[in-house]
Amino acid sequence: MPMKKFINDPQNLTAELLEGLEICFSNKIRIVSDKIVCRANPKSDDKVAVITLGGAGHEPALSGFVGEGMLDASVVGDIFAAPGAPKVLEALRMFKREAGIILVTLNHAGDRMSAGKALRDAAKEGIKVVEIVTSEDISAGIDADPEDRRGLAGCVPLYKVLGAAAEKGMGIDEIVELGERFNRQMATLAVAMTGCTHPQNGDPVAVLPDDEMEIGMGQHGEAGGGRSKILTADETAKRMIEQLIKATDVNSGDNVMLLINGVGATTLMEQLIVYRAASKILAERGIVLTDGWCGEMLTVQEMAGFQMILCKLDADHIELLKAPAAAPYWSA
Amino acid sequence: MPMKKFINDPQNLTAELLEGLEICFSNKIRIVSDKIVCRANPKSDDKVAVITLGGAGHEPALSGFVGEGMLDASVVGDIFAAPGAPKVLEALRMFKREAGIILVTLNHAGDRMSAGKALRDAAKEGIKVVEIVTSEDISAGIDADPEDRRGLAGCVPLYKVLGAAAEKGMGIDEIVELGERFNRQMATLAVAMTGCTHPQNGDPVAVLPDDEMEIGMGQHGEAGGGRSKILTADETAKRMIEQLIKATDVNSGDNVMLLINGVGATTLMEQLIVYRAASKILAERGIVLTDGWCGEMLTVQEMAGFQMILCKLDADHIELLKAPAAAPYWSA
Repeated sequence: MPMKKFINDPQNLTAELLEGLEICFSNKIRIVSDKIVCRANPKSDDKVAVITLGGAGHEPALSGFVGEGMLDASVVGDIFAAPGAPKVLEALRMFKREAGIILVTLNHAGDRMSAGKALRDAAKEGIKVVEIVTSEDISAGIDADPEDRRGLAGCVPLYKVLGAAAEKGMGIDEIVELGERFNRQMATLAVAMTGCTHPQNGDPVAVLPDDEMEIGMGQHGEAGGGRSKILTADETAKRMIEQLIKATDVNSGDNVMLLINGVGATTLMEQLIVYRAASKILAERGIVLTDGWCGEMLTVQEMAGFQMILCKLDADHIELLKAPAAAPYWSA
Repeated sequence: MPMKKFINDPQNLTAELLEGLEICFSNKIRIVSDKIVCRANPKSDDKVAVITLGGAGHEPALSGFVGEGMLDASVVGDIFAAPGAPKVLEALRMFKREAGIILVTLNHAGDRMSAGKALRDAAKEGIKVVEIVTSEDISAGIDADPEDRRGLAGCVPLYKVLGAAAEKGMGIDEIVELGERFNRQMATLAVAMTGCTHPQNGDPVAVLPDDEMEIGMGQHGEAGGGRSKILTADETAKRMIEQLIKATDVNSGDNVMLLINGVGATTLMEQLIVYRAASKILAERGIVLTDGWCGEMLTVQEMAGFQMILCKLDADHIELLKAPAAAPYWSA
């Protein structure tokens, strides 16, 4: 039985989707080398470059955020798979510059391994690069070792902060401090209602009984330990935002950004209903919703569910989040 | 068994989702009266107002396109249901002005009935308003009577053209001519792989066998007559774009806009693969892809499928499509 997906040869998914992205956004991005997506109009060499890496099948992430005021490049792996270290090194070589490079790695074993190898090789070649690892998923527990937490869609607002700071011409040390501070001050929780289909082999990714949902599920269907009967939108939002408030330690008077990232089949209708419920709890506690968005940023095929991301914002973050950006799937 | 959706009381879906939209985009839109969504910063009274109406459950459409350079207001019905004529009349009264109002109605029986009644009542009150009806779905046949064709997601680029022209201060006659010309020069085809769940009663909307898809399905699951076994992305794109090219009568050297509107569970990965295939056929025929986008504009809950929209563009359309816009789900 063929999959209920609009695809051709499953082996060509990544190449074909990137080709579509390049055609659709030819004024914004360009595939400079196989599976390396760069800005169509590169920024000048005297500015810090911001690069990321990760598997495909999560569109618009990650390549949809390459563009003015965001990423300079994304290094793309195959479906749900990290790119190899040589590809990452190739991108680092491409952006070698006095000002330096920031490499954003989401904490997943494959990505960390490729990034680590590429960074060691780059150092030998005298390429100046600093890695920022995101690991903002709190499903393993608020106090879990960062090495044991996954990087979820919180990378997207981080790209925005780093990209805006780099565009302004800030030095690498200052940008890394800003970014690491943003990184430490954000937390994400995911929830799933259904699994999805791996688009290359047709296998189910995560299976949930008809009357259950799971808070904490990772973006490849990894178990999160929060199985329950299906809750209402308000109950789901409450359980999630309360944990996120605790994890980020936000209090009355603090500024925050709240994002809902739809992971696939969950409608924007539902995301907005959840957003409403979560933002009301923030308001009740005197926490100031300064920025936010609802929609698909980092998807997991046709999985039903979403990620809720809460970021405590300092004044410099607020300004950088509002700065101009013109990536295919993020404009400001 | 509860539905696999993040909702509360199904009777409150529309009110709650609109509340979420208002909180998330408080700098862009405001609910001025129950189920009437307006711009947070209204444009001046000497400019033509652009208003639309339609059911909820299709987010981001229609209210996600209210904002600077697009719609002045959307009048929202309940899930998959037209708003009543009194609500439409209320919105027309709100925007009564010398410059006039353009009301965009998608060709669906309920919407046409409410709009028709409101327009008759508005005329008695001396409100200056011109209706533009969209009916760009070609699934009933290229030569079908426009009254027998449905209005699909082609309303979205039309809002952009009308909103940009109004923002520039053009007169109502000129804007209507521009809009009607755009309207005549566009065509849409939808395709579905799976049905979806009505979020109020849990009933299935359209059921498709496991190995079939349907080209021509409407945005509430209406039959389209194009059932087939599952085709590859390239075959699907070819069948659709060829009919759209014929319907819009575009030829070598003509400028076009190509849009893929994901209707729910179909991933952006798939949409980009389809975009690639369709745009290659345009290129082979010497048709110039001047503008375009891939993503969710008008959804049908968690249905798997997409709509492909092809618009033949004149020079004035190209300019208006590129003009600034700042709606929640469309920026330029």
